[in-house]
Amino acid sequence: MSHDAVTPPPAPTFIRQGDLLLLSGQVGVDASWRPVAGAFQDEVRAAFANVRRVLAEAGARPEQILKVTAYLADLGDFSGYNEVWIQEFPERRPARTTIGAQLVSPFRVELDVVASLDDTH
Amino acid sequence: MSHDAVTPPPAPTFIRQGDLLLLSGQVGVDASWRPVAGAFQDEVRAAFANVRRVLAEAGARPEQILKVTAYLADLGDFSGYNEVWIQEFPERRPARTTIGAQLVSPFRVELDVVASLDDTH
Amino acid sequence: MSHDAVTPPPAPTFIRQGDLLLLSGQVGVDASWRPVAGAFQDEVRAAFANVRRVLAEAGARPEQILKVTAYLADLGDFSGYNEVWIQEFPERRPARTTIGAQLVSPFRVELDVVASLDDTH
Repeated sequence: MSHDAVTPPPAPTFIRQGDLLLLSGQVGVDASWRPVAGAFQDEVRAAFANVRRVLAEAGARPEQILKVTAYLADLGDFSGYNEVWIQEFPERRPARTTIGAQLVSPFRVELDVVASLDDTH
Repeated sequence: MSHDAVTPPPAPTFIRQGDLLLLSGQVGVDASWRPVAGAFQDEVRAAFANVRRVLAEAGARPEQILKVTAYLADLGDFSGYNEVWIQEFPERRPARTTIGAQLVSPFRVELDVVASLDDTH
Repeated sequence: MSHDAVTPPPAPTFIRQGDLLLLSGQVGVDASWRPVAGAFQDEVRAAFANVRRVLAEAGARPEQILKVTAYLADLGDFSGYNEVWIQEFPERRPARTTIGAQLVSPFRVELDVVASLDDTH
């Protein structure tokens, strides 16, 4: 099972203001904007990989993430999300909020990330 | 078809902290807090007009918007939202996240905006 | 009627960056992570009590809250939320957004809070 590529949203992947980085919502697509099919955890990992790619474009590291708001299409996937969360952040973890919301098909997770280029926190 | 006026929420339209502006969620109401009836796109335009009005109160310009989180009551309106988005931001665009959520009736869109009074980004 | 204790999320209660505080989503649990049963308003009060507790850990006061995003499992509870909101913020109020979303059972409200340790706003 595979998905057709989706159209990227008409927005930049991030905006920087001072040391603050506000990312556009990241979903589980590959480099050709083809949604990741298969296990939910693989989709979450792909979404976090896109977060890391955007952070790298902005000159930031994953350790500089301050907050992750995750939108899940099905709250039954909550434990699968936690499983990937713990792998993504083995040590210092960001603040987070996780709620259920409607997402554009076929996405099951979308990640909203705030990060900082400053390390003094 | 027209709607009765709704009660404004018991909150300020924005809070400023340093150069950062955090707006309260903006919906498509006219100056009398009467929800805009008719086409979805008209409601989105009215919501963005309210965002611009609040920014003006705060001494900011639309170009200083950093991030727009849009909540849509019906994801079937996603392309209508994009249509207005492109008109509202013909050049430099903010970061954005767009999800489906339940909204107080009769609203079909609510906009959550973060802006900055500083232009150095 | 009472609820079994829930597992705390694998995330810190807040992250500080400069003067900015980003809190993890707060729900209506007691000190043993047992969800508050009974009236919706009591659950909202418990969630705000947890917000205040986290702010105190961070060295901040409730007056330093900039924005509250509230997620309600049932928009029929909107007026109950407003009732508690007005009691929690009798004077200076934060900016706010309130939407309906799916929450992990048995929660009916979750609060997403941004605050500042700086008082110059």
